[in-house]
Amino acid sequence: MRISGLAAATGVPVATLKYYLREGLVPPGAATSRTQADYDDTHVGRVRLVRALTESAGLSLAAVRDVLAALDDPPTSRHDLLGAAHHALVAAEGDRAAGAGTDLSRRRARELVAERGWCDDLLLVDRLAEQLDAADAAGVEVSDDYLRELAAAADQIGTADLGTVRPDPVSALRQVVLGTLLTDPVLLTLRRMAQVRASRETGGV
Amino acid sequence: MRISGLAAATGVPVATLKYYLREGLVPPGAATSRTQADYDDTHVGRVRLVRALTESAGLSLAAVRDVLAALDDPPTSRHDLLGAAHHALVAAEGDRAAGAGTDLSRRRARELVAERGWCDDLLLVDRLAEQLDAADAAGVEVSDDYLRELAAAADQIGTADLGTVRPDPVSALRQVVLGTLLTDPVLLTLRRMAQVRASRETGGV
Repeated sequence: MRISGLAAATGVPVATLKYYLREGLVPPGAATSRTQADYDDTHVGRVRLVRALTESAGLSLAAVRDVLAALDDPPTSRHDLLGAAHHALVAAEGDRAAGAGTDLSRRRARELVAERGWCDDLLLVDRLAEQLDAADAAGVEVSDDYLRELAAAADQIGTADLGTVRPDPVSALRQVVLGTLLTDPVLLTLRRMAQVRASRETGGV
Repeated sequence: MRISGLAAATGVPVATLKYYLREGLVPPGAATSRTQADYDDTHVGRVRLVRALTESAGLSLAAVRDVLAALDDPPTSRHDLLGAAHHALVAAEGDRAAGAGTDLSRRRARELVAERGWCDDLLLVDRLAEQLDAADAAGVEVSDDYLRELAAAADQIGTADLGTVRPDPVSALRQVVLGTLLTDPVLLTLRRMAQVRASRETGGV
């Protein structure tokens, strides 16, 4: 198909497609003339993926590039794979939070991690500490008990997440990286639905 | 304090502060001369809030304006309040997802809501449907069972969230709107920590 066909198949405007091509996010089509190229279903799939990562998962183009690189060159063993997937995922989100939090928040984050028997992943501990500081700066109190309740729910989610991962490396990587990024918004919407339910029960709404 | 003092107190550059002032996100200081104004602690608090909503919660400036309007003019009864808070929260996020999803995804979303005894909130059902479609378009499978597991965890989170809401209307509104927006990133970080734990247990990492 021509680029107009790719636009029709994906619902992404031609100007945006040209931008993706220029940025190397979508591989070039097979040249059919000096100014035209032919695109196939692999291009349709890649465009949809880039769109989903930018629009739904809210990643920057630089982060999308990192995720695509990990997907294009997956490690061969399952052992390395989930680690690499997580690394790609967390690194791709690196631009969302750059600092490391205050000493107090870092201590709280570390204590929570130890309490739940989680890994002491430096990048994630720093990120959590910074997010706790941001809540504090906005006047939102996050008590230790409340944080524990969130962590307990997160533990259930993490177990459910890993249950979706299939044995072969390529689908496993796709599922960990894309599955997490694309179900993050789903989870936050479900949270709002549950809040309305909880609020109604306490007579609030 | 002068605007340079406000910048020092909040860590927000003077150019950004001037932008917030121009956009009406932060109220003007008391004029002390034709070109200078005096700012106080209420300005410090407001600047921190705007910063947290844009940086940590990732809201657009238009959405920040909606949230601030709800905070500045809270309903007087607790009954109206949680509803108004939720309305402000969901409306403020409106620009994140504009469509309504396919018929299939809308049916799935409705069935999940019915199964859990949640409210059939049109805006949230549409949003969930669209997010399910986005995952599907990126080749991420979200099974009914997995969606149920996420919903069960979300229900626990919703209950914990409402437990943090204090009786007086102004703090309740702040907590529902800001608390949700600012702990969304916390929840997603905890999810990643739990995934590492689950992955290690299955021998993955």
